[in-house]
Amino acid sequence: MRNKNKRHRKPGLSPGELTGFDHTNESEDADIYLIQFNDTEIKECKVSSVEEMVVPSSDDRKVYWYNIDGVNNPNQLAAIEKKYNLHPLLMEDIASAEQRPKLDDYDTSLFLTVKMIRIDAATATIYSEQVSFVVFKNLILSFQEKNKEGDVFNPNRERLRQNKGKMRRMGVDYLLYSLLDTIVDHYFEIMEYVGDKLEVIEQEMLTNPEPEKLKELYKFRRELIYLRKSVWPLREVIVKLERDECSMITDEVKPFLRDVYDHTIQVIETVESTRDILSGIVDVYLSSVSNRMNSVMKVLTVISTIFMPLAFITGLYGMNFDNMPELHNQNGYYVVIAVCVGIAVGMLVYFQRKKWL
Amino acid sequence: MRNKNKRHRKPGLSPGELTGFDHTNESEDADIYLIQFNDTEIKECKVSSVEEMVVPSSDDRKVYWYNIDGVNNPNQLAAIEKKYNLHPLLMEDIASAEQRPKLDDYDTSLFLTVKMIRIDAATATIYSEQVSFVVFKNLILSFQEKNKEGDVFNPNRERLRQNKGKMRRMGVDYLLYSLLDTIVDHYFEIMEYVGDKLEVIEQEMLTNPEPEKLKELYKFRRELIYLRKSVWPLREVIVKLERDECSMITDEVKPFLRDVYDHTIQVIETVESTRDILSGIVDVYLSSVSNRMNSVMKVLTVISTIFMPLAFITGLYGMNFDNMPELHNQNGYYVVIAVCVGIAVGMLVYFQRKKWL
Amino acid sequence: MRNKNKRHRKPGLSPGELTGFDHTNESEDADIYLIQFNDTEIKECKVSSVEEMVVPSSDDRKVYWYNIDGVNNPNQLAAIEKKYNLHPLLMEDIASAEQRPKLDDYDTSLFLTVKMIRIDAATATIYSEQVSFVVFKNLILSFQEKNKEGDVFNPNRERLRQNKGKMRRMGVDYLLYSLLDTIVDHYFEIMEYVGDKLEVIEQEMLTNPEPEKLKELYKFRRELIYLRKSVWPLREVIVKLERDECSMITDEVKPFLRDVYDHTIQVIETVESTRDILSGIVDVYLSSVSNRMNSVMKVLTVISTIFMPLAFITGLYGMNFDNMPELHNQNGYYVVIAVCVGIAVGMLVYFQRKKWL
Amino acid sequence: MRNKNKRHRKPGLSPGELTGFDHTNESEDADIYLIQFNDTEIKECKVSSVEEMVVPSSDDRKVYWYNIDGVNNPNQLAAIEKKYNLHPLLMEDIASAEQRPKLDDYDTSLFLTVKMIRIDAATATIYSEQVSFVVFKNLILSFQEKNKEGDVFNPNRERLRQNKGKMRRMGVDYLLYSLLDTIVDHYFEIMEYVGDKLEVIEQEMLTNPEPEKLKELYKFRRELIYLRKSVWPLREVIVKLERDECSMITDEVKPFLRDVYDHTIQVIETVESTRDILSGIVDVYLSSVSNRMNSVMKVLTVISTIFMPLAFITGLYGMNFDNMPELHNQNGYYVVIAVCVGIAVGMLVYFQRKKWL
Amino acid sequence: MRNKNKRHRKPGLSPGELTGFDHTNESEDADIYLIQFNDTEIKECKVSSVEEMVVPSSDDRKVYWYNIDGVNNPNQLAAIEKKYNLHPLLMEDIASAEQRPKLDDYDTSLFLTVKMIRIDAATATIYSEQVSFVVFKNLILSFQEKNKEGDVFNPNRERLRQNKGKMRRMGVDYLLYSLLDTIVDHYFEIMEYVGDKLEVIEQEMLTNPEPEKLKELYKFRRELIYLRKSVWPLREVIVKLERDECSMITDEVKPFLRDVYDHTIQVIETVESTRDILSGIVDVYLSSVSNRMNSVMKVLTVISTIFMPLAFITGLYGMNFDNMPELHNQNGYYVVIAVCVGIAVGMLVYFQRKKWL
Repeated sequence: MRNKNKRHRKPGLSPGELTGFDHTNESEDADIYLIQFNDTEIKECKVSSVEEMVVPSSDDRKVYWYNIDGVNNPNQLAAIEKKYNLHPLLMEDIASAEQRPKLDDYDTSLFLTVKMIRIDAATATIYSEQVSFVVFKNLILSFQEKNKEGDVFNPNRERLRQNKGKMRRMGVDYLLYSLLDTIVDHYFEIMEYVGDKLEVIEQEMLTNPEPEKLKELYKFRRELIYLRKSVWPLREVIVKLERDECSMITDEVKPFLRDVYDHTIQVIETVESTRDILSGIVDVYLSSVSNRMNSVMKVLTVISTIFMPLAFITGLYGMNFDNMPELHNQNGYYVVIAVCVGIAVGMLVYFQRKKWL
Repeated sequence: MRNKNKRHRKPGLSPGELTGFDHTNESEDADIYLIQFNDTEIKECKVSSVEEMVVPSSDDRKVYWYNIDGVNNPNQLAAIEKKYNLHPLLMEDIASAEQRPKLDDYDTSLFLTVKMIRIDAATATIYSEQVSFVVFKNLILSFQEKNKEGDVFNPNRERLRQNKGKMRRMGVDYLLYSLLDTIVDHYFEIMEYVGDKLEVIEQEMLTNPEPEKLKELYKFRRELIYLRKSVWPLREVIVKLERDECSMITDEVKPFLRDVYDHTIQVIETVESTRDILSGIVDVYLSSVSNRMNSVMKVLTVISTIFMPLAFITGLYGMNFDNMPELHNQNGYYVVIAVCVGIAVGMLVYFQRKKWL
Repeated sequence: MRNKNKRHRKPGLSPGELTGFDHTNESEDADIYLIQFNDTEIKECKVSSVEEMVVPSSDDRKVYWYNIDGVNNPNQLAAIEKKYNLHPLLMEDIASAEQRPKLDDYDTSLFLTVKMIRIDAATATIYSEQVSFVVFKNLILSFQEKNKEGDVFNPNRERLRQNKGKMRRMGVDYLLYSLLDTIVDHYFEIMEYVGDKLEVIEQEMLTNPEPEKLKELYKFRRELIYLRKSVWPLREVIVKLERDECSMITDEVKPFLRDVYDHTIQVIETVESTRDILSGIVDVYLSSVSNRMNSVMKVLTVISTIFMPLAFITGLYGMNFDNMPELHNQNGYYVVIAVCVGIAVGMLVYFQRKKWL
Repeated sequence: MRNKNKRHRKPGLSPGELTGFDHTNESEDADIYLIQFNDTEIKECKVSSVEEMVVPSSDDRKVYWYNIDGVNNPNQLAAIEKKYNLHPLLMEDIASAEQRPKLDDYDTSLFLTVKMIRIDAATATIYSEQVSFVVFKNLILSFQEKNKEGDVFNPNRERLRQNKGKMRRMGVDYLLYSLLDTIVDHYFEIMEYVGDKLEVIEQEMLTNPEPEKLKELYKFRRELIYLRKSVWPLREVIVKLERDECSMITDEVKPFLRDVYDHTIQVIETVESTRDILSGIVDVYLSSVSNRMNSVMKVLTVISTIFMPLAFITGLYGMNFDNMPELHNQNGYYVVIAVCVGIAVGMLVYFQRKKWL
Repeated sequence: MRNKNKRHRKPGLSPGELTGFDHTNESEDADIYLIQFNDTEIKECKVSSVEEMVVPSSDDRKVYWYNIDGVNNPNQLAAIEKKYNLHPLLMEDIASAEQRPKLDDYDTSLFLTVKMIRIDAATATIYSEQVSFVVFKNLILSFQEKNKEGDVFNPNRERLRQNKGKMRRMGVDYLLYSLLDTIVDHYFEIMEYVGDKLEVIEQEMLTNPEPEKLKELYKFRRELIYLRKSVWPLREVIVKLERDECSMITDEVKPFLRDVYDHTIQVIETVESTRDILSGIVDVYLSSVSNRMNSVMKVLTVISTIFMPLAFITGLYGMNFDNMPELHNQNGYYVVIAVCVGIAVGMLVYFQRKKWL
């Protein structure tokens, strides 16, 4: 549930200083992949180094999309920063894996960081990956963490190639929307995951409450807290994009962004109502623990209440007094047994009436 | 409590792509029913296919109301989308059964999705159906899920036919209000359902608290969470409609919408205060469990406290020491019995004073 | 704590259709009482039917106040609606006993619905009555439920008659304020009721906690929830009146409305802090239940711990082995008794040290 | 913790009617004390009756400060109301001891009511006193409840006399600030009181949790609720003063008011975080109660588990069957004792391993 | 967790009166250190007294940064106040160690107080230090508490000397940002501290829940409350700085402040979600306590239920009746033993089935 990288900035460093990340494979270069397209043509190529990257002139009508896969090499990031004249803090945010989703609007460019939530197939737990976008008039730089599960944007590329939908006809803002939508579509998997897990936990806790299962519930609750923390600021980001705050987003794209916004709201509401339901399950669980204790106590009390008087009676006639007339009575023994049976039956009837049995 | 259909969009699909819903009876066509009316005349007909649907010219003074019953056939929906030149995302929202209630204002048209809450007569549980509206200047398209319980808008049709109220004299906005009002009127059934169920649960939990009943309470709480999740966004939708945000809604209709708004607020308040009351019931229940445990423990303690000393005394005189003078005392046995009775009575008085009995 | 009437609107009815209320005495006519006054003169009369009611011309400088006592007769209400050309929804709201307090501003008229909270002297519980006002330029219609406890507005009438205060000199807005103030003044009774009840419950729960009393606390909490639900929207109503939203309210009257507003805020704060205090009482109560359980368990444990070893010793010398030298010792019996006393005293000292006694 | 006076307005009274307060010493006149000053001179005198009070002309450059000590005499208050032409509701608010802190701006005058929180030295509990201010262009009327602990404004008087600080050079707004600051400075005592009490309760509850101490904690929590209720509206009052809403407050005084505002915020935050901490203490306390129960139960279980099998063995050989060969074994008795010791030791080792001892 | 100094203002003192702090080493002078720099040159010197401090003329293009280390000497502070013509309340805030973080904008100067959170290496607890800034057009005064852990701004000085980053090229606003950033960078240590501590507590509470550990959790929760109280108002301070409210902050510096803002938000979110997780841990812990109680009770009940009937049987045949035929049966004893074993085994099987063993 944790990100793999931690930011260890020494207090007092210059903003934007990128040295000192304790990434495990720091030297690893990112894979850079360019797609440039307009309505009629599309070109794709792998870019081997930052030097080869192009800064399109502002009157170029093509859309350039550089996808940078891997954010572990500070030198490379610094080179990109210099080439595109990015704000120094921006690269710091891209490289920091614990950055909160946010949107910064630098007049000529737009900077977005969002969290992509995925489910680790092996452990069936959720984890998040950071995806950052820098958007210029006709250029998008997208930054992802290197990931063995494959590039998340492959479907978008496919649609560009096949000229499906309106992606090729429209500008960077629609491309940005389309990439964000791909990320947010993963949230539906999450909502299904949350729904399924809730159902399992509910089923288990209501029918067969066990202390171990409360720990599972606790872990699920923790995942929900993590999920909310990741999705909540994304909502703000998209609100800002959609409202009239960003000159770069055209009116035509705004209904699409509103759709993405709806999806984030839905995730947040699902998380909130799931948490609400979980706290109800905990109530039921704790009460069932109390009830089981109650029933254990009842067994003990019934047993004690029946046998303690009987033990007294047998003890009584086990005394060794010289003068105990009953002992010499021919039927004494049978009377005692009868009395014992009577007491036992009487007690049982009494407890039956009290609904303890 | 769940919707029957789930949206399974593959991440990365074009927005508005409608293939791939796993509806069970996907091929099933919707029933399309047209009512066109103005102050003086009304015409009704069943429309057999999308091709027959009419796009009224903008200076047509009649109101056209197409009711589309069934949202499972993506081809049909796509045809409607094309005919009325709707936004691609709109059809996706109509077909997705888990869409959050929302209002989108596309200058020349208005799109609304709301949840209709109904009570399943068989299982006495609540469930929701999605109803969507696309509103043009003189045209309303209403989309419903196909439903065996009959079309919810029949009373509205009846009023149109009988020219009762002002429906015929007024425009699409009043028709929209009237349809929304029909939906929200169902909420009064829900409030009665909630009120009755609360009364039953309260009665049961306060007089005869049982662990099984806590589970019922839990299920009720879950229904309330579901209810709130359905109604809460509806409130926003109607606020947006009523405030000066939608050019299509005339001032004359706004007081009516405010009335609908009041009803949604009332549902929300009922849900909130019911939840509040339920948490009080849980407190009372848990304390009654503790109290019963307490009384069980008291019985056990009283019994033990009385009979343990007695058992000691009888044990004492059951010992086989040679030299135990009391054993040879003529009245020893009777003295022991008297002492035992004395101890028992003393204990009982003591516990009576301590209010344990 | 419930209202006596329920609204059973069939879904799909025209708005404002007033048939179908299941009022028990539906045919019962309302008592209509007119007071018309200006600075110099005052006239009062009972109005026998709606037909006799007057619609004052807009340049009439007198203030007309019709008080309609009873809202059960839909025909009468419909007649009033027609006479004063009221909005159809308005009568529906007046007749519905579960209407939420609200303010609707129809340019030439103002519509208010508020809840009057009263204490039922017999059962010492609170209940609410709905009072509605329609305010025109020189006319107020006030609607109340028929009530055996007498008309709540009698003191206002008395002041009008005696020309006490400035009521006669000022317009409808001051009369409206004065009527609202009368209603809100009842809230001070409620606050006293709440304060007194809290004190009783606190006293009982802290000194002598009993499960039955928790149920009382629960009922009190429920009353508070009901109270808040009634008063909270009233606050909004008065805010709207006082802020510059209603042209009908003159600046001179606004400080008075602010006073009424303060009183509603005070009720709300009292309710909130009382609820807060109650939840603290529940904590103390639950902990006292646990503590009593603890002390019961301690008694049981002390008794068992003392007598079980003793029982073992007596049992030991009650065995029938041939070769048990102690049995033949002259002082064996006395030694055993001494040992038993020693064990008992030792245990008691031990538990005393452990603070169990 | 309660105020000493209660407002018993009969519903329906004219606003501002001052008869009917059930003050115990209603006839008691207030002490009126005048200080009039400007930069160069200061005059002080005790005013024996309202008739002697002066209404300064609006071009008088002196500042007049009338301090009215005691608000129990309605006639006197009515006289003041008449003399200074105050709003009728204002006097009602001054006399009502349960008035919520508030600010009313009547163009030519400003009305403030605040709560002064003090600690009763005798009982070490907090209580509140109401202080009201009416501020005109060059006149302040301050109203206090009569108080044996001495007049709270003495330090302010002293500073005026000694011409310390800038009080003499500045106008009524600075004087008002200075009086408010005196009141809010008392809040630091309260914060210290709260901090100290929290420390004591924390110490007691964590080291030696007792049910009686939970009641203390409950009382403390109640005081905090009372405190918050008194301070929270004060915050609003000062915000209104400081923001550009009151023409009477000059820009030069606003930074000082912001300082007072900061102090109220600090009290509120202290109250909130203290409540938060207290709820953590309750958790720890309740868990410690459970743990003690647990340890009591363990003692009982250990004792029972050891001695019940032993009692069975001794019972076995106390039976009187003719044919019990072990009884005649020379070492039978010793074997039984050895077995008993073995069982006891075994059990103890077992419980030791289970960490029950 | 407490600040070391307390403010003991006597109520009624003049605002800004600085006498009377109960600082332990009040006479101790602050260390004043000046750095003055522009793009091309930098001068540093230790200033021995306030008299030597310079008030730069408003057209001086250098930036002057006076760092005042120690706020315990009121005379010195008063001298600074006089020299720079500061608002009297300002010095009071600087000297008061319990001042809430705040920003005051006095047109020509800006006043900031923030909390620096640090971890005490020795006790591994967090504590806060107050840092205040007064910012003029080309002058910053920074005030810190004297601290053995070394001056926190050393890295900033180093960067100025080495002309690293853009600090030397830019004005006071960037210097202010850089100092704030240094403070906020310490928050990452705090977040790591919080994350690590949460992990330890979670580990301990879930695997081996002990009452002592709940106290640790409680102390951690208290630290979080303290942390939130320190960081929350800082957020407001930076929002005010970054929004267009302060003329002194140039647009170029605002993105940097937004970065600082993001960090404060991240701390707040971490605190909130940690608290959320902790409350889940408490639930798990309390349930595990109940479960252990349950298992103790089960052992007791199993033991009692097995041995009480056996004790009855042995007691029965220990009675001394003359006529007890079984006693004379040759196999009686063996039958009894067989019955006892049977009962014991039967009970064990029964409890096994009930899953109590």
